[in-house]
Amino acid sequence: MSGLLWPGDERAGPTFGDAAFVSAMLEVETAWLAALVQTGVAPSSLDATRSVGGQPIGGTDLAALSAAAEAGGNPAVAFVSWLREEVGERDAPAARWLHRGLTSQDVVDSAVMLLAKRLQRDVLAEIGRQVEALAALADRHRSTEMVGRTLTQPAVPITFGAKAAAWLQGVLDAADDLGSLSFPAQFGGAAGNRSGVTALGGDPASVAACAAAALGLLERGPWHTDRAPVTRLGAALTGCSAAWGRIANDVLTLSRPEIGELAEPFAVGRGGSSAMPQKTNPVLSVLIRRAALSAPAYLSLLQLAAADAGDERPAGAWHVEWQPLALLARHTLTAASQTSELLAGLHVGAERMSATLDAHRDDVSSEYRSLAGLTGQRGGWAHGDDDALVTAALQRAREWAAHR
Amino acid sequence: MSGLLWPGDERAGPTFGDAAFVSAMLEVETAWLAALVQTGVAPSSLDATRSVGGQPIGGTDLAALSAAAEAGGNPAVAFVSWLREEVGERDAPAARWLHRGLTSQDVVDSAVMLLAKRLQRDVLAEIGRQVEALAALADRHRSTEMVGRTLTQPAVPITFGAKAAAWLQGVLDAADDLGSLSFPAQFGGAAGNRSGVTALGGDPASVAACAAAALGLLERGPWHTDRAPVTRLGAALTGCSAAWGRIANDVLTLSRPEIGELAEPFAVGRGGSSAMPQKTNPVLSVLIRRAALSAPAYLSLLQLAAADAGDERPAGAWHVEWQPLALLARHTLTAASQTSELLAGLHVGAERMSATLDAHRDDVSSEYRSLAGLTGQRGGWAHGDDDALVTAALQRAREWAAHR
Amino acid sequence: MSGLLWPGDERAGPTFGDAAFVSAMLEVETAWLAALVQTGVAPSSLDATRSVGGQPIGGTDLAALSAAAEAGGNPAVAFVSWLREEVGERDAPAARWLHRGLTSQDVVDSAVMLLAKRLQRDVLAEIGRQVEALAALADRHRSTEMVGRTLTQPAVPITFGAKAAAWLQGVLDAADDLGSLSFPAQFGGAAGNRSGVTALGGDPASVAACAAAALGLLERGPWHTDRAPVTRLGAALTGCSAAWGRIANDVLTLSRPEIGELAEPFAVGRGGSSAMPQKTNPVLSVLIRRAALSAPAYLSLLQLAAADAGDERPAGAWHVEWQPLALLARHTLTAASQTSELLAGLHVGAERMSATLDAHRDDVSSEYRSLAGLTGQRGGWAHGDDDALVTAALQRAREWAAHR
Amino acid sequence: MSGLLWPGDERAGPTFGDAAFVSAMLEVETAWLAALVQTGVAPSSLDATRSVGGQPIGGTDLAALSAAAEAGGNPAVAFVSWLREEVGERDAPAARWLHRGLTSQDVVDSAVMLLAKRLQRDVLAEIGRQVEALAALADRHRSTEMVGRTLTQPAVPITFGAKAAAWLQGVLDAADDLGSLSFPAQFGGAAGNRSGVTALGGDPASVAACAAAALGLLERGPWHTDRAPVTRLGAALTGCSAAWGRIANDVLTLSRPEIGELAEPFAVGRGGSSAMPQKTNPVLSVLIRRAALSAPAYLSLLQLAAADAGDERPAGAWHVEWQPLALLARHTLTAASQTSELLAGLHVGAERMSATLDAHRDDVSSEYRSLAGLTGQRGGWAHGDDDALVTAALQRAREWAAHR
Repeated sequence: MSGLLWPGDERAGPTFGDAAFVSAMLEVETAWLAALVQTGVAPSSLDATRSVGGQPIGGTDLAALSAAAEAGGNPAVAFVSWLREEVGERDAPAARWLHRGLTSQDVVDSAVMLLAKRLQRDVLAEIGRQVEALAALADRHRSTEMVGRTLTQPAVPITFGAKAAAWLQGVLDAADDLGSLSFPAQFGGAAGNRSGVTALGGDPASVAACAAAALGLLERGPWHTDRAPVTRLGAALTGCSAAWGRIANDVLTLSRPEIGELAEPFAVGRGGSSAMPQKTNPVLSVLIRRAALSAPAYLSLLQLAAADAGDERPAGAWHVEWQPLALLARHTLTAASQTSELLAGLHVGAERMSATLDAHRDDVSSEYRSLAGLTGQRGGWAHGDDDALVTAALQRAREWAAHR
Repeated sequence: MSGLLWPGDERAGPTFGDAAFVSAMLEVETAWLAALVQTGVAPSSLDATRSVGGQPIGGTDLAALSAAAEAGGNPAVAFVSWLREEVGERDAPAARWLHRGLTSQDVVDSAVMLLAKRLQRDVLAEIGRQVEALAALADRHRSTEMVGRTLTQPAVPITFGAKAAAWLQGVLDAADDLGSLSFPAQFGGAAGNRSGVTALGGDPASVAACAAAALGLLERGPWHTDRAPVTRLGAALTGCSAAWGRIANDVLTLSRPEIGELAEPFAVGRGGSSAMPQKTNPVLSVLIRRAALSAPAYLSLLQLAAADAGDERPAGAWHVEWQPLALLARHTLTAASQTSELLAGLHVGAERMSATLDAHRDDVSSEYRSLAGLTGQRGGWAHGDDDALVTAALQRAREWAAHR
Repeated sequence: MSGLLWPGDERAGPTFGDAAFVSAMLEVETAWLAALVQTGVAPSSLDATRSVGGQPIGGTDLAALSAAAEAGGNPAVAFVSWLREEVGERDAPAARWLHRGLTSQDVVDSAVMLLAKRLQRDVLAEIGRQVEALAALADRHRSTEMVGRTLTQPAVPITFGAKAAAWLQGVLDAADDLGSLSFPAQFGGAAGNRSGVTALGGDPASVAACAAAALGLLERGPWHTDRAPVTRLGAALTGCSAAWGRIANDVLTLSRPEIGELAEPFAVGRGGSSAMPQKTNPVLSVLIRRAALSAPAYLSLLQLAAADAGDERPAGAWHVEWQPLALLARHTLTAASQTSELLAGLHVGAERMSATLDAHRDDVSSEYRSLAGLTGQRGGWAHGDDDALVTAALQRAREWAAHR
Repeated sequence: MSGLLWPGDERAGPTFGDAAFVSAMLEVETAWLAALVQTGVAPSSLDATRSVGGQPIGGTDLAALSAAAEAGGNPAVAFVSWLREEVGERDAPAARWLHRGLTSQDVVDSAVMLLAKRLQRDVLAEIGRQVEALAALADRHRSTEMVGRTLTQPAVPITFGAKAAAWLQGVLDAADDLGSLSFPAQFGGAAGNRSGVTALGGDPASVAACAAAALGLLERGPWHTDRAPVTRLGAALTGCSAAWGRIANDVLTLSRPEIGELAEPFAVGRGGSSAMPQKTNPVLSVLIRRAALSAPAYLSLLQLAAADAGDERPAGAWHVEWQPLALLARHTLTAASQTSELLAGLHVGAERMSATLDAHRDDVSSEYRSLAGLTGQRGGWAHGDDDALVTAALQRAREWAAHR
């Protein structure tokens, strides 16, 4: 994952990167060992936080872990080996008890959910900024009339406020889906029946509840072959991309100079061309649209992985998930940030909107004339319910912001 | 759509078929006209139910409508023309008022939501049957031990009850997503700001609320370019297919004669081969798996349509939706019915399970031996937490059934 | 499959419809029986063409066959039963020998290839019309200057002839891929090793070669689990859709009234709105774009089916193929016809192009100024290599047409 | 891209990695400048190879370039700025002439084709190894009888040689598609009409031909919005993954201990579990299957990008391509290497095959009995045409190897 092939990727920071992934696996192992101790399964003399949790994850180890992952087929097997060795140098009993009762899928799935929960927080923070910007745009432009366009052609007059309100409703729909996700821990053991804890003489439900609580995750029983937590996450992220893509699509169309009703915020050096000095390309919108077009395919892989699950843990389907999920996560956060920036600085050409509306006045009032004839009304100019739609969207935005 | 290329399609009955679609569009037009009358916009002398609602939709008209759809680019334009003519023969004023204030997307989107709501009901009814069958299997086989398999290889002992409980949890997750859907009416007018009702001198929100209530749909404002209602539906249906596919995958593996632990219900003439008289193919599972593998691609088109939305109504993206959604709907209902039948008659080879477990006893107890050594426990045989997992799943199933 | 949910579908005629599919299966069975007779395996007294080939396929039978397909899991098992019964009423020995040595996948795969070959012919015929129209456009507009646009913004001057030539190159690339397909018969028998013919004492390669020749298909050995013939077909069809979609995208942009450089051909009643009397939507382009956006997902199912093949014949993967392939086939032929119509009547607004170019002259000559400074050239106006690109495209078109 | 989330990724080496990408862009710029000099457009005093080509691409620069890519929206804009500065420090005239006549898409597309050509070579080298291994397996096991399985159930006897021959045919089909790709350079200039070279007073076709020849790429005119070179590449890579996936699927099924007919090559430390000491998971096959299941979605993005192309260069569609293509490239090369290793060391359990066949003899001879009755033949045992199929596959393999 790099910004060279996915420009803007740096905006996603460490999200779902290798270091974050390994770090999350470490948190899972630490919480699990602490839970074994706390529930009386492992000796009370062990201190998971000290012996395991403090383990530094360095750059060198990442490359080695990455290379070692193939032999086990997943990131956890090699990680556990490495961690056991590292811990063992300082605390042999802790090393012996490390990972007992878990299987590699427990570690990976729980780590994924930890990262997902943080991603949710970060994306919702961006959405908070977008909701503010959109509400301001909708309110400010309640009376900014423009041509409403359908199937590329002038339809009826609308206000830009109503358009911004429609964008806002889409973003709030996406926010609702993202906000309602829950993030379950995975502690199923070797074959999903928690055989390991039983073998250790512990109560699996108690250990799982204890470890999940420490991680801030939900305990809902094993889900090795029931991938709803992953597919729901993927669907919510894809929904966000679509809501932003829908905005970017409008910016791309309306910032064509022949239309000229919107323009991206200016930033020095952005949107330049390698060939044409005059060019200012709508780069943010281009990159947001790119993410929106890409997300459905990544989601389809998560859905396919769910559909192909089998046995007590699947042979390939699970392995399909990690990369598209990590990419979808990073792309979503990148697009979130780009959309926030786009909306915060969006230029609205109210005069151009008005001029174009005037130029198409005859066309865009044909519905009005045809309907007014029915009721005997005449004269004047058509106004839709734009204002009420803006008010409704602002109301919803306020409620959403109040309950985050 | 036919069973020739999608064997079993007949199980879906009229769902999302052409006749059902046209019929739903008729319901929408009827409810809208009634709402115009009821809110005082259209003359009180009009009787929408009598003049419009009773319109019979015959087979001949369907073919003509289908052929006529291209000119308008969507199913509604030609339908409205046809309907206006039909109604006009008996009630000219009703014909004149028909569809006023609506746009074609209102009719199509609202009709889709009507069909979706009925689909939800039908699929949930099948899931009700599945939940019963799965709960019975899980309960009956609490003590049926078998080999748990991961990545194709023997892992640890589980019970078949626990496996059935895991299947059940997956189905309940899918049921939760499907059950929580809401189905909004679409009454946005030509460009999403309800300009038509305004032009007619009415209050758009009142008319929309009135029409939505008559249709049993939610009123939430226009969503022409915010496709969350469609993508959420698609995601929920795909989740169902995955939950059933995961069961079918296990049946396909475990009904291989070399394993022989499960078998599909027998039905005369089913599973035969055109070449080999002895063959009994696991046809239900094959067809369920087919649906599960297919659904993600259909969903990806709904998500792509959402991502490509633009202007006040999009030029192509919206048009992408109808066919994949209709297919996904029919496939889901077909697979629902096939899964119900599969589960109701599933043969469980408890003795074979036991024999295979005995044969692999050494292998599948390696985790136990390795863990028991840690705690000093010895001897006996490993038991996971299977029983508790069954109990938890049965509890959830009872609660789900009680609150449907 | 109907035009209600896929407006324009009627253009595809019987292509890959149920009747065509059954008819193709009948051709396969007839050719196979004839080959058994011709190679001396079946009695020389049998007359396949008379006893089997003339079997009428009526509407009633289609519905029954469709409903019966589920039991066998594919369209062939029920078809063979039905055919054997029908044939048996008049010619018991022919009925006894029918389908001997074949498996259901042989019948379905060979029938698919027969239909594919006819589809190739029909699509190439449409492409022939498109190539003519595009060549004429490119040639006629060698000197029609316009603004070249990149990332939505004015870039440098181009000619519309060069744009049409670029469209033409894309169509020719698609035509090359489609034209180079080969269509193999499938005669692998029950498990792909032609065991049936051996059991009958025949030489499998001879019988297969004889039957393939009669069908006009290639004989290349069994390919039950090697789906290259299907995925290549899907990729070629998707490539066609993309080439046409790329044209439609330009028409959609350039027919926005604010740009107004292109317009779809006028047809009475086409492009109308159900709400706005003035509207003329670019319906052909909308529907072509719809097909282009949809095709990749259908193709992905064919590719997935190939990836999931296993054993000697797969349990679900094969069953995934038929519907997306049939849809992709019909959509491609529909879009082919729509594109031919679009190009034949495309309105080119040369004056508007010229005016817009003048209005942006300063912007679009920035590259020229920047480069001219390097070489000391000054004054005049930038001309690209448009003319040579047109000439090259016309040359390629002529060669393509000559070698079809 | 890392092996942590895509275990085995290290096998792909530098393929389509950031360093390789930048290095390829450098080659393109060097070849272009050299061509400008060689064709007399740029001063003969410039030495492109010395002044530009030798530019070292260090790690620090990669991170900076990656971060800088967002402003231009693609990897080339920032790269050209950086390169111009670097070159300018030593050779100001070369820096001034650098990239003249090109646009960023020229650099990226040509660089992609350079990398693709090398990928083709590397994958074909792996396929060469596979073809050898498969030919040896097919030949060695001409007489190794086993149960042929269809839809998971025993069908008729086959030989393992015939199964290996079927695998081989699939790999050769994929090799044919991959081997027939051509790799065109992209030198279209700002808007695809080579306006830059014209502005410089040069002959665009000559400069392009000269630069393409230096890069070992084909010159076929601009293809900015005609993405056939990219989609064909994607389809060929996906075809390879499917051919290997089909093999891995069989290994996964047949290495279940209940079947036990195949086993992956043993490697110390491979296939271990983090929970169960006894486990040897078929990791290579799991990871190959993962790649096969994933590829269609990545391909679908390349196809979507092609379908969404518009204007003279697209606003988002092109940007979609780079990441899925790079991933598909790396995944394909990784899976190629894993498949080579799998096939080179595959364990074939001929005795177990024979024993299972004996156990199912009655079932798998039902076709034979049913057919033998037709011809009056009796007794003996059914043999398919396995030997001839092996011979044909070996013949094709020899021809393929001879003509590489």
